[in-house]
Order: sequence, then C-alpha cells, then structure tokens
Amino acid sequence: MKQIDINCDYGESYGSFRGFVSDDILKYISSVNIACGFHAGDFRTMEQSVKQAMQHNVKIGAHPGFPDLQGFGRRFMQMTPKEVYQIVVYQIGALSAFVKAEGGRLNHVKPHGALYNLAAKDLSIALAIAEAVYKTDNSLTLYGLAKSELITAGKEVGLAVAEEAFADRTYQADGSLTPRTEKNAIVTSIDEAIDQVVHCIKHDEMRSVCGNTIKLAADTYCIHGDTNTALSLAKQLTYTLKKENIIVG
Amino acid sequence: MKQIDINCDYGESYGSFRGFVSDDILKYISSVNIACGFHAGDFRTMEQSVKQAMQHNVKIGAHPGFPDLQGFGRRFMQMTPKEVYQIVVYQIGALSAFVKAEGGRLNHVKPHGALYNLAAKDLSIALAIAEAVYKTDNSLTLYGLAKSELITAGKEVGLAVAEEAFADRTYQADGSLTPRTEKNAIVTSIDEAIDQVVHCIKHDEMRSVCGNTIKLAADTYCIHGDTNTALSLAKQLTYTLKKENIIVG
Amino acid sequence: MKQIDINCDYGESYGSFRGFVSDDILKYISSVNIACGFHAGDFRTMEQSVKQAMQHNVKIGAHPGFPDLQGFGRRFMQMTPKEVYQIVVYQIGALSAFVKAEGGRLNHVKPHGALYNLAAKDLSIALAIAEAVYKTDNSLTLYGLAKSELITAGKEVGLAVAEEAFADRTYQADGSLTPRTEKNAIVTSIDEAIDQVVHCIKHDEMRSVCGNTIKLAADTYCIHGDTNTALSLAKQLTYTLKKENIIVG
Amino acid sequence: MKQIDINCDYGESYGSFRGFVSDDILKYISSVNIACGFHAGDFRTMEQSVKQAMQHNVKIGAHPGFPDLQGFGRRFMQMTPKEVYQIVVYQIGALSAFVKAEGGRLNHVKPHGALYNLAAKDLSIALAIAEAVYKTDNSLTLYGLAKSELITAGKEVGLAVAEEAFADRTYQADGSLTPRTEKNAIVTSIDEAIDQVVHCIKHDEMRSVCGNTIKLAADTYCIHGDTNTALSLAKQLTYTLKKENIIVG
Repeated sequence: MKQIDINCDYGESYGSFRGFVSDDILKYISSVNIACGFHAGDFRTMEQSVKQAMQHNVKIGAHPGFPDLQGFGRRFMQMTPKEVYQIVVYQIGALSAFVKAEGGRLNHVKPHGALYNLAAKDLSIALAIAEAVYKTDNSLTLYGLAKSELITAGKEVGLAVAEEAFADRTYQADGSLTPRTEKNAIVTSIDEAIDQVVHCIKHDEMRSVCGNTIKLAADTYCIHGDTNTALSLAKQLTYTLKKENIIVG
Repeated sequence: MKQIDINCDYGESYGSFRGFVSDDILKYISSVNIACGFHAGDFRTMEQSVKQAMQHNVKIGAHPGFPDLQGFGRRFMQMTPKEVYQIVVYQIGALSAFVKAEGGRLNHVKPHGALYNLAAKDLSIALAIAEAVYKTDNSLTLYGLAKSELITAGKEVGLAVAEEAFADRTYQADGSLTPRTEKNAIVTSIDEAIDQVVHCIKHDEMRSVCGNTIKLAADTYCIHGDTNTALSLAKQLTYTLKKENIIVG
Repeated sequence: MKQIDINCDYGESYGSFRGFVSDDILKYISSVNIACGFHAGDFRTMEQSVKQAMQHNVKIGAHPGFPDLQGFGRRFMQMTPKEVYQIVVYQIGALSAFVKAEGGRLNHVKPHGALYNLAAKDLSIALAIAEAVYKTDNSLTLYGLAKSELITAGKEVGLAVAEEAFADRTYQADGSLTPRTEKNAIVTSIDEAIDQVVHCIKHDEMRSVCGNTIKLAADTYCIHGDTNTALSLAKQLTYTLKKENIIVG
Repeated sequence: MKQIDINCDYGESYGSFRGFVSDDILKYISSVNIACGFHAGDFRTMEQSVKQAMQHNVKIGAHPGFPDLQGFGRRFMQMTPKEVYQIVVYQIGALSAFVKAEGGRLNHVKPHGALYNLAAKDLSIALAIAEAVYKTDNSLTLYGLAKSELITAGKEVGLAVAEEAFADRTYQADGSLTPRTEKNAIVTSIDEAIDQVVHCIKHDEMRSVCGNTIKLAADTYCIHGDTNTALSLAKQLTYTLKKENIIVG
C-alpha cells in the first residue's frame, strides 16, 4: 500500500482579514504550511493554526515568504541571498515557538509564492533558504518544486527533501509551473486535478499544457487553499486515493 | 567579590534607520535585550546583534514589544492578555532561531517600553508574558521592574526572575519610574547615574525624585542605549564598579 | 418627501485579503466611507472604490483610522491630539488624490472604529480630527456619532456636520453604542434594524437595550459592511423607506 | 545672472528613527523632496518637513517610493504600471494635504530610489508615474534623471519637467548613475562634487568614471541628504555658485 503526502498552505489570514480555506480541509490532508507573518498570517493565526493542525494530526510546516503583506508575497523583491537567509530564519523561528509552546514538532519548511518560484531557479537563493533551514533545525524536511534548484540545494546542505507536485496548477513543457498571470495557470476542474495527481503517483509523470509528459516522482502534492474548490478537491482526492489503495499521510 | 548584571537594549535599528547605541557598549555590559522586529529591529539587525553579543560574551535576551514600529513600542495599545501572550511567543521564537543558528543560547526575556510598563502594573498582562516565556523555553530568566507584577508573575509560573533597576532613569516616591513625558525622567549626569547604581548595589535602596528612599534589591541594572551618553556611562560605570570590587557579569 | 442619507464603510480590503461587503450595496446607499490604508484599504482598493462610488453616484467620504492594520483600527492606541491630527490629514489627502484623479469630489470624513469611539467622548481628540478636516478641505462634512463630542468639535471649528445613527448597532441607556465586545452589540435581525431606522427617522428617538428611549435626530444612518446581512439590509431598507415616502440620497 | 535649482531628499526619518540630514541644509538649497511614508517618512515627519520648508522658502516636492520601509525603497519590487500609478497618486495626495493645511503649494514630484531608477529606463513605469502626477495636479513639475524615460514620459503627458543631475553621484560612460552597490558610486570629496556641478552648469556636460564626457543640460542638481558631508557640501556649493554669479533658487 502506497502512502503519499498532501499539503496545503494554511493560516493565510491577517488580523480581521480572513483567508479562503476552511479548517475542514485538515481532515483530508497530511501536512500544512503555515504562514509566518511576512506575506500573510500573524501571531493569532499562527497559534490557532498550530493548535488546529495538532488536533487533526497533520504535520506542521513553516511557510516563509517575502516581507510583502500587500502583495501576499507573490511579487518578486530584489533581496540578497543573505537577506533571504535572514527572513527564513526569522519566520521559522517565530512559528517554531508556537509549535513548541503547544508541545508539537515542526516537520518541514516550504517557501511561499515568489520566494518559492525564485528558489526553484536561482541556486544562490535556494542555498540561502536551505542553509537557513539547516542551521535553525537540521531535522526539518525542505519542501520544494520537484527537480528544482531548491531540491538540489536542500540535498547539498544535508537536509531531507520532499519533491513537490501540484494538484491544481498546470505545467509548462519544461516542467515549470504556468505563471499565475496566465489564464490556464490553475486546474479548475476537480476531476482533472484528481486525475493529475493519481496519474503522477502511478506513473511518475506529469502532462504539460503543451501535451508532452514530464518525468516527475513527487513526494508530496500541493492543494492551494485559496480556491473555492480546495475543500471539495481535498475531500474527493482523499476518497479517490483510498479506492486506489493509496494512503494520505 | 560581588557580581552584578548590567543590561542594555540593543539592535534597535530598522532597515536603513540606525539606532543610537554604538556596538562598543558590548565591552562594558553583561547582557543585551535584542529588539525582535515589532517596535524596532529586523531580520538583519537580529542576526548581526546576536553575532556581536556572542563575540563579546554578552548574555542574549529577547526584547519583545508592542507591534508598533512608528511609535517604537512606547505607545499603549489595547491588547488582550491572549494577544500579548501571542506577540511574546512570536518574538522570542524569531530571536531564538538566530541564536540557535549561531550556536548560542538565549538567556532571558525583557519586555520593551509600553509593554514593560504595562506588565509592571497589570497582573493579567504580566502573567500572559510570563506564560509565553515559560511555554517557549522554561530555562529563560524573566527580566522585570523590581518589585513589579511582572516579577510576581514570573515567580508564579515558575521562571527564574531578575529584578531590574535603572541607572539612567529617575524614580517616583512609590518606586515607579518617572514617565518619559516628564522633564526629569532621565538621569543625564553620568556621575549621578553611577552613584545611583553603586548606592543601590551597596545599600539595596534607591532615592526617589521626592527625596525618599525605596527598598530595592536589584539583580540587574539597565543602561538605555538611546542616549548620547550611554557608551560613556557604561564605560565609567564598569570602571567604578571594578574599583569597588564589583564585577559586571 | 423626506430625504435621508444611508452610509456604509467601504474599501476595507487589503491586498489579496478581501473585505466582506459586496459592491452591489452601492445601489442601495447614498454615501460610502472609504478606508485609507491605515486600518484597512490600500492604493488599489482606494482607486477601485472611488471609481465604483462615482459610477453609482454615491457620495465619497474618507474613513481614517488608527495605524493598526492587524487590529483593523478597532484597538485603542495612545496617540496625542497632534498625532491624531496628523494621521487624519494624511489619510484624507491620500483619498482626495484618487477622487481628484477621477474627476470626483470628496464629500465627507468619518473616523473609523476605535478612533470614532474615542472622538465621541474625548473633546481634545475630536477637535484634532475636526481641525484636520477643516484645514485639509473646509467644504467637507464631518460625520460623527449623534450628540457626541465629535459633532460638538465639528461645529466649533466651522464644519458642516452629519449626526449619525446606526441601523445595525444597539444603543446603551446613555445613548452610546453597545461595545462590540458585548453579545448584543449588533442588531442581527434585518427587520429590527429597519424598524430601528424608520422609527428614528419618524420620531427622532432611538430605543436602548435597557428599554428607555433616547432623543436622537440623525442626518445619516450607518449600515456595517462587515456583516453577512449588510446587502440584504441595505436593499430592504431602501425598499421600506421608499414605501414610507423617504428617499435615500 | 544664471539661476539653478538645488534639491535634496528630506523628511526621511520614521517614528523614533532619525534620518541623516540636518534641517540646516534648508538654508542652502532651493527645493526638497519629502518622503511620503512608503520608503521613509510618516505623518509626523511630513507635517514637520512641510513647515520647515515653508519657513525657509524652499520649494516642496513629493518623494514617492516603493512600499518598502525595511528596504528604504532601494530594492526593486515587481509592480505593474497600474500599481505604480496608484502608489504615486496615494503618496502625492498624502503630502498635498499637509501642504494645503499649512497654506503652501506643492511644486514637484521626484520618485525615490529603485522607483526613480526603474522610471529612468522603463517607459511604461515612467508613463504610469507621469500620469499619476498629471491626474493628481497637472501644475506640478516632474523631476527625473536628465535624458531619461521619465523626462520623456513627463513631456508626453504634458507636464513641466526638470532634468536632474547629481552633485554627489558618479556617472557611467552611458550617462547612467553608477549603482550604489559599486565602490565609486558616491562622490565623497566636497570639492569634486562642487566642481562636477559648476562644470555641468557652465558647459552642459558631465564627466563619467570612464573619462568620457556626457552632454547634459540639467535644470536641477541633487545633493543626497544621507551622507555625512551633505550639509557642508550644500553650504560650500551655494557659496561657490554665488561667486560664479549663479543663484540657487
């Protein structure tokens, strides 16, 4: 029986501003990436999200982003590798304290948005992130885009890595994600998203928007919390995987 | 031979905005309270300050404040004890990560500005802070105004506490600090500040601006980094204490 | 035929974080109070909100708040009258520029949240706000809680004022609003909210939660945008008022 | 008798964090670019700076930057032309209100840091800025790097423009400023900075670090406020220009 990790960004509210995803999604996924206050999230959402994740036995990850609340961390900012190292250490530390205060364990780190995309292609940034994770807690797993520079960097510094594929994002011919500025960036059909995951789990390959297939052996699959269908997708995906004898965990 | 702790707020810059205190002060004090990004400080100053403190063998403390950069955390904000708990956990965590990344050890927590003053008088806020410190790391020492509610709270939750007196602040008849809005809040004469400390170390009492004396056995003395004379005061104080056979450490 | 102003807070999103109220509400109200970036709102929402208000022929007001995005401006902050003057000038100016760029006209200013409540009771803060409005543009109308210090201050500096009552908030025996921390602060029944407005328009009095009536001649009625029922309330209120020969405008 | 404008960035403090430049510099320059709260400056510094500029009869300009206080607006952020338009409208508006409240007149707009550099080379960003200035107040002058896209854009939308040269920055062979990351970016010698200005005023040309000369007829010269020598440079430059029969004004 195969086991696969399904992760979802979480705690992406801020103050009175509510994020999209319902906490019911915790029933259907195995790990969360909790926003740490830079692109979203604050001291309240972090404590709450950690508690909720622990109640549902979901693995907890830090989800550090660029310091850009107004842009939700989706906007490229010109930071040096040293600055990137520093923002990642800061954010992991802040979340770690909530996890420790609740008696839990931090499992992983997954960069957010523009930082994630930058780290996929820029090795110096990827190494800065990997080093930040390693020096803060070398038992953490680094989540990154499958076959990206972030995975290379994580291995190089000696971290466990999880190669990530996306349930609800489309792929370009070269294996990169279709940018969010493109119309077809998001897989809006739940059935197609489920097919994409199941096909990738079984065949270690992903179909691109151009029709070619990309070799891709993923350790974890991401469902985006900021779509209307996230909860339904998570629920139906878990159900489908169960029928296929694949455990989410 | 007596030993006494001299502490100073540190790392209170932000981005391109420089704080007042010179890093030379680290030669003459035994512990620093490093700003954690809410009232001052950022990911860069925190890393730098931790490194500098370790180079000078100075004990490292977290210096959490209200989330109010424009007001430098000196402005009262109406937060619930739960919110205060959360902002303290967040800030301790962020600093802890830099300390851990450098192979150091976090020694203490001292609240900043309006949060420090509030915690001196409001037991529910004081308990929220003490609980945040305890749950994040119960080996930390809680620094608070001598004989204040924060000291009471620290003892109640089971933390080691350090009762603090001020070298360069004047005292009211009731033992509280003269508010910064008052003209005579600051001891501007270096000689008077040194006298105030030496007298308090020797006699466990402090003179108020009204002429009465207050019983006060302090474990640590604070020098403010945001005065022009901070460095001179620290230097001369250390020198005077040495002559009196009192070690700063 | 009587005419009455119905106002609603608007543009209270921030970056990717969406506010509650649907823009359909603009069909049923006569003025909006647009957030200016301190407690909510940003450069994008402000431009967009101004355009939408102009399309619907709705009067545009600035809605300045405390500089506290995480607390949504609902948290008291200790600011001097001078600082309050400055934050109000800043925020009116920012919104004015968007109004001018679109060829519109700014109509009024209504303080937000904790600043509104503070200004209702503290005359020095109320005067600081009124002076900020007057010096920025003395043709603006100042919206404030009916019979409050803010109304007194507005008249004193020479501004036109609009005394405000609330459709969906309950009143205390002394005519103040029931604090949001109380269970019965919000009028959740649409029918009751409509009754409250119609009764007040007809009889210049408001019933308190204690059963007594308060003399209250309101120039404008507020509907809160951050409730699920705001749109329905606005729609049905307009319909009811029309039947009563009262025009919203 | 020739007349030349000398401008300086101003009001670049934030809360308790002090900027570098002394207000004595206002005696020796003819216009200031006041920070508007995004990269530096706040409601307090803006009011104060406007008052000081008016006392010294110095022309007042808005100095809008990227929304990046930690990076002092010197870090590139990926914003669309529409977003750039919006941040410029917002910031001009905020400063305008303080100018109006004091009975003054806003004279110009000069973008700050990374936004200034981007606008020098990217016409779509330059046009967004120019349009923001024009729609907010078409009587304003747009300050931009001499011969840059920002000057082109200003003329295209119908604004008065001022072509700017720098007293204390070095030039590359192609007429662009040497990036601040380079060692020789700043002219640290006061005498050399004065020579650079006088030579450019007299001969309409600037010498590059490579030794070639660049044709450059400047309307305004910038002195940076964030150097230790700014005040001395301004003072001596005014004195030298006076001897050369050139009036600063």
